[in-house]
Amino acid sequence: MTHLENDIFLRALLRQPVERTPVWVMRQAGRYLPEYRASRENAGSFMDLCRNADLACEVTLQPLARFDLDAAILFSDILTIPDAMGLGLYFETGEGPKFKHTIRSRADVDALPVVSSGDLDYVMSAVRTIRGALAGRVPLIGFSGSPWTLATYMVEGGSSKDFGTIKRMMFSEPDVLHALLEKLADSVISYLNGQIDAGAQAVQIFDTWGGILSPTDYAAFSLQYMKRIVAGLKRENEGRQIPVILFTKNAQFNLEKMAESGADALGVDWTVDLNKARELVQDKVALQGNLDPSVLLGSKATIRSRVAAVLESYGQGPGHVFNLGHGITPAVDPDHLKVMVDTVHELSPAYHK
Amino acid sequence: MTHLENDIFLRALLRQPVERTPVWVMRQAGRYLPEYRASRENAGSFMDLCRNADLACEVTLQPLARFDLDAAILFSDILTIPDAMGLGLYFETGEGPKFKHTIRSRADVDALPVVSSGDLDYVMSAVRTIRGALAGRVPLIGFSGSPWTLATYMVEGGSSKDFGTIKRMMFSEPDVLHALLEKLADSVISYLNGQIDAGAQAVQIFDTWGGILSPTDYAAFSLQYMKRIVAGLKRENEGRQIPVILFTKNAQFNLEKMAESGADALGVDWTVDLNKARELVQDKVALQGNLDPSVLLGSKATIRSRVAAVLESYGQGPGHVFNLGHGITPAVDPDHLKVMVDTVHELSPAYHK
Repeated sequence: MTHLENDIFLRALLRQPVERTPVWVMRQAGRYLPEYRASRENAGSFMDLCRNADLACEVTLQPLARFDLDAAILFSDILTIPDAMGLGLYFETGEGPKFKHTIRSRADVDALPVVSSGDLDYVMSAVRTIRGALAGRVPLIGFSGSPWTLATYMVEGGSSKDFGTIKRMMFSEPDVLHALLEKLADSVISYLNGQIDAGAQAVQIFDTWGGILSPTDYAAFSLQYMKRIVAGLKRENEGRQIPVILFTKNAQFNLEKMAESGADALGVDWTVDLNKARELVQDKVALQGNLDPSVLLGSKATIRSRVAAVLESYGQGPGHVFNLGHGITPAVDPDHLKVMVDTVHELSPAYHK
Repeated sequence: MTHLENDIFLRALLRQPVERTPVWVMRQAGRYLPEYRASRENAGSFMDLCRNADLACEVTLQPLARFDLDAAILFSDILTIPDAMGLGLYFETGEGPKFKHTIRSRADVDALPVVSSGDLDYVMSAVRTIRGALAGRVPLIGFSGSPWTLATYMVEGGSSKDFGTIKRMMFSEPDVLHALLEKLADSVISYLNGQIDAGAQAVQIFDTWGGILSPTDYAAFSLQYMKRIVAGLKRENEGRQIPVILFTKNAQFNLEKMAESGADALGVDWTVDLNKARELVQDKVALQGNLDPSVLLGSKATIRSRVAAVLESYGQGPGHVFNLGHGITPAVDPDHLKVMVDTVHELSPAYHK
């Protein structure tokens, strides 16, 4: 087993006893940090930053220098796979990600290659570089977008308000969409196994848009493919288990079905109380979350009381990883995040006695 | 009691027996109808259409000429109250509603007037005109935005992606936000009672953005004020009960608390199965919903099978009003909506035996 100074994040994901609740933050390497903005400016485009292993490593480590976090997460984008499939990912200022080519028909899907980890060497290289730089301080999380979430961007061509194009496909040509989701699931399996081989010690699947579906459609078009991925992943490396986290934003009642997916842990957003979520998942999985990221825009006193409420909502015992319910936003003052992290450290030992 | 040919919508909201499940559609008078687009073009701006009682009546009745609907809904906008408060509502093409003036401070809130139904004469006039034109065919629904939802637009200045400005206020100056919500609740009470006096036979409160809040914040910043409104409304007119519907998009677990609000019915979006929702509300209220509006973009066979699934999910007995889970979108073919309405008529009697 390789050296790991602090493994409470991995233990909590496996519902093993810990001394305090581990904490990390989605998008912890990001625009709210002035040092990130400086690195980003030096890099050129956002994708240039992702493609340069040394720069990706530099920004991955930045939040760990400021805050007492229990995990690092690979700096990359969820849309690397469709980009590697040839869709031409680009970013327009203030508009989010876009693709030059969209997927609209059976012929478009048939023409798409399944990609493997070898097609995303720059990501594997970043993982190796970051693992080296971390030197066993905390574990490194790898990640991918879920097939459904990747498909929304590929079909819509970017972000969407009502997802009319992919839903039209779903309700009129479901077989075409299933064919696309199958190719994506196979690609994600290879991609995440590649990250695990390169040194990722846990992986998270981001299903940002699963929550816009009815429960029936969620099961058929999102969860089904995440289950397939979970079943295809290496679950052990370097003598340690590799925990898998599924995060569907706005999962709500779907948490019950997600708990049967084979994943070790579920990410939960702030619109569900953790005690309700815990009831739904019946201790089959660990839970990660779930402070409203906007609480960090509020007063320090509010941050402290809301952190306390999240810890209390989960309650006693193992299986909780503290996080925001979604990514940290650019307007947050880094000192406010420090208050959050420090409060988790201060208050959480009482829940692990 | 005034004449009403078809009162199954009102009876269903009160959980009384009906022969079949009533059906209407949020935004049923809207851009998906070519005759609406023609009226809209003649009117000038969207608000010109709302402010002209004859034109508002014309578009209100358009969907009833095409589809066998069990209710009409006043053609208006949810943002009439902040507009009457002096914030200067306007619409930019493709960008949604905006306000010239925003509410950001205690001084801004203090300077805002509470408005009464008398300040919104054009709406009362539209209600009277539509009631006359309906001539008792089906009931007329009046409506308002919820205080929380109105406040989001007033503070953000329009639609928002992450509601950072109002959430910053919520988590740093909650008293300022509460003062705003109080003024809005008082205004909504007068506004809806005015609509009831003018002839609205049921009212719906649209809480489009309540679902972005944690359960704790939803209770404190949205539901509390809707409860206050429900308690302040006239609940009888013309010898009939006036049912009140609360619709919070993405309400999920909050449905349980909403069922205790004093409202007669709850609108439910498509991300919850109606049988789960019915379990949560324990037959304390009727339920309205909940087909994914995007199903109408799919094939007619899919529309039929999904309508059947919604009816089956609610199951036997009274207390269901069929609707979409949110407003109908402009890209829908009107013939597809006809398939939906006709399928409800065809299949629902089996659930009321």
